Amino acid sequence: MIPKPLIFENNKLFILDQRKLPFKEIYIEVKSAYQMSNLIKNMAIRGAPLIAIASSYAILIEAMKKNNKEKLLKSIEILKNSRPTAVNLFNTLKEIEKIILNSKNLQEELFKLVINLDKEEKEKCLKIAQNGLKIFKKKSSVLTYCNTGFLATTGIGTALGIIYKAFENNLIEKVIVPETRPYLQGSRLTIYELEKLKIPYELITDNSIAFIMSKGEVDLAIVGADRVLSDGTLINKIGTLNIAILCNYYKIPFWTAFPTSTIDKSSKLEEVIIEKRNKDEVIKFKNFLITIENANVINYAFDITPKHLITGYITENGIIN
Amino acid sequence: MIPKPLIFENNKLFILDQRKLPFKEIYIEVKSAYQMSNLIKNMAIRGAPLIAIASSYAILIEAMKKNNKEKLLKSIEILKNSRPTAVNLFNTLKEIEKIILNSKNLQEELFKLVINLDKEEKEKCLKIAQNGLKIFKKKSSVLTYCNTGFLATTGIGTALGIIYKAFENNLIEKVIVPETRPYLQGSRLTIYELEKLKIPYELITDNSIAFIMSKGEVDLAIVGADRVLSDGTLINKIGTLNIAILCNYYKIPFWTAFPTSTIDKSSKLEEVIIEKRNKDEVIKFKNFLITIENANVINYAFDITPKHLITGYITENGIIN
Repeated sequence: MIPKPLIFENNKLFILDQRKLPFKEIYIEVKSAYQMSNLIKNMAIRGAPLIAIASSYAILIEAMKKNNKEKLLKSIEILKNSRPTAVNLFNTLKEIEKIILNSKNLQEELFKLVINLDKEEKEKCLKIAQNGLKIFKKKSSVLTYCNTGFLATTGIGTALGIIYKAFENNLIEKVIVPETRPYLQGSRLTIYELEKLKIPYELITDNSIAFIMSKGEVDLAIVGADRVLSDGTLINKIGTLNIAILCNYYKIPFWTAFPTSTIDKSSKLEEVIIEKRNKDEVIKFKNFLITIENANVINYAFDITPKHLITGYITENGIIN
Repeated sequence: MIPKPLIFENNKLFILDQRKLPFKEIYIEVKSAYQMSNLIKNMAIRGAPLIAIASSYAILIEAMKKNNKEKLLKSIEILKNSRPTAVNLFNTLKEIEKIILNSKNLQEELFKLVINLDKEEKEKCLKIAQNGLKIFKKKSSVLTYCNTGFLATTGIGTALGIIYKAFENNLIEKVIVPETRPYLQGSRLTIYELEKLKIPYELITDNSIAFIMSKGEVDLAIVGADRVLSDGTLINKIGTLNIAILCNYYKIPFWTAFPTSTIDKSSKLEEVIIEKRNKDEVIKFKNFLITIENANVINYAFDITPKHLITGYITENGIIN
């Protein structure tokens, strides 16, 4: 069994500390939105769909302690700033904001909303997976990137969820997993899930992707999404653009899968802020220095893939080509 | 000052242990070809031009101790197998083999040959650098890969040597350095050289290359070569093909620089063996495990870039387009 990335039980909220994976399965009790925001910033919890639901629960936890609308609205602001690229987070928090502003029975309505958001998200994952089956023409070797599975949502995942469903349907030969520097979501999280589910995979360094493709070893690629603009531009984990260009060169289908809550209908490309993260992620493993401490590092966490490189978008509502 | 990767002094041979860089500058005395072969396999010494010269010195060291032709020929065989892609190594060892087979005054002739090979290689580096200046149209932001500088040759380097010469000529805005997983020759060795020479650089993860290029931040790319086939196919560090395809997509010139000893006139592509290295390089840093110990890993050390992706070849004899 893959441990749940989030547990809400007896009105208490726990998140699995993903920084400790694959070595230790440790849960942290979350008691405030501020704490949740820091856990997102520090990558204890990640995955665009997951952090939206987790943030909703964090607001719920606060609302259950103190019924102060002003303070709750401040907490929402704090959470919005914890991951600038993830639009699910904004969209979900906006719904919660509405309840806070308008409801008469705040705690009860918020409880219903959050439980329902979580339930809906799980259902969306299953629908995405079901819809994703249509892209398989044969038993395939699939490249996926970063982590988009049980640890990135409260359901079975997005891109990786499709792979799970395809595996059940005997459509997976093997999964090619780039390690996803610097945070190693591929090597720490994705192969951890694949090991638990006994699905064949090969872990490779990110810079091996072109060579593996040149050998004809990849039939298709599926990645997740942190944000999709209304013109089809995909914002996702750094390295996604690289894969999309390589797929284009080798004429390999390149798909992205996400719940429609990931779609940003209002922002323009020039308004999107690409998060630059701390250089320590590149020069250290844990606290262990791997190169010069005062190195000049540019650590972009996400990149931008234009529409013309994308074969299609897989959502809970179907596939858009 | 960048420490010399190889010192031959008072008939003793020392190599700088590059595994310890950038933290410690430790030399190992090399007393046999067998020892040198292991040091190459374990990456204590690397860089195609450097290991050819270092292997020549190792044979010389052995010849100075015992003048047994048969044993020396066996030592040559051991060294040939230490890095299957590096053709400089084969080519150089063939020259040494001739001396061993034919000379009457073995030690003296071998001494002359090896000292001369080393001197010639240093001169070739300078000529490559001088020829490489012609590819600059303006002060440029240059992407380079792996390590091809003072630590990869006994001279100023190949691709990085060109960058040094260009910097002297005020043609370098900054150097973009991908970290080069899994062995981190970019983050451990190249930025170590650039820091010592006070040349502006940015260290990035390998999967950031596409995004950095998409922002218009790369004017040209220069990489080294482990082997170049007579049809122009380039065999080089894993990730090179990736860069060549990205350059092609963004219409950025992609150059490779090497001494002509790197050219393999006899092998066909299907005869080239791409070294698969130990999975520990991917799942560990030093002895520190970074993911599941029994992970299924494919760790190709080199890849193959076809001629049509290469803008031109820079050698000591000039540029071939």
